Amino acid sequence: MTELEMAMTMIVDVFARYSKGDSNSNSLTKGELKALMEKELPGFLQNGKDKDAVDKLLKDLDANGDAQVDFNEFIVFVAALTAACHKFFQQAECK
Amino acid sequence: MTELEMAMTMIVDVFARYSKGDSNSNSLTKGELKALMEKELPGFLQNGKDKDAVDKLLKDLDANGDAQVDFNEFIVFVAALTAACHKFFQQAECK
Repeated sequence: MTELEMAMTMIVDVFARYSKGDSNSNSLTKGELKALMEKELPGFLQNGKDKDAVDKLLKDLDANGDAQVDFNEFIVFVAALTAACHKFFQQAECK
Repeated sequence: MTELEMAMTMIVDVFARYSKGDSNSNSLTKGELKALMEKELPGFLQNGKDKDAVDKLLKDLDANGDAQVDFNEFIVFVAALTAACHKFFQQAECK
């Protein structure tokens, strides 16, 4: 497997790991999104200082309004975040 | 580094590796895009059967019309491809 194929597989794996908890294993519930963010992107939610951060993020990502985050919504987020990190990389270093 | 952070870093690394060849290291030229596709996503361009495949892909990805693929255009492609693979995964297995 190439590096790019591996990166894509890892993103699919991460989503699957956190979304499989409830009956609808194709989407992240609010609790699953919170767990994913805390463990996979520590620091993004500012260490829990903003108690509404997960609610806000869910609202932002939930394009189809079903109160969950499906893979298509998740990958748009990962892409936007990677683009932001890439821009920051060019200037300094992406944490 | 978490698995998701590692995946994002790998995507940034792959783009950087193939885009650094010419004077504009922030974008993939047609030749750089061809090299990236052949080495990182073998099989996607159908093993060179379609000689216009790289031209078509470049045209599809080049949202701002500068005849190159910048990181934002690249990550949109990777996201779309990952989403397609994820859908396929759910049915069978993503190659």
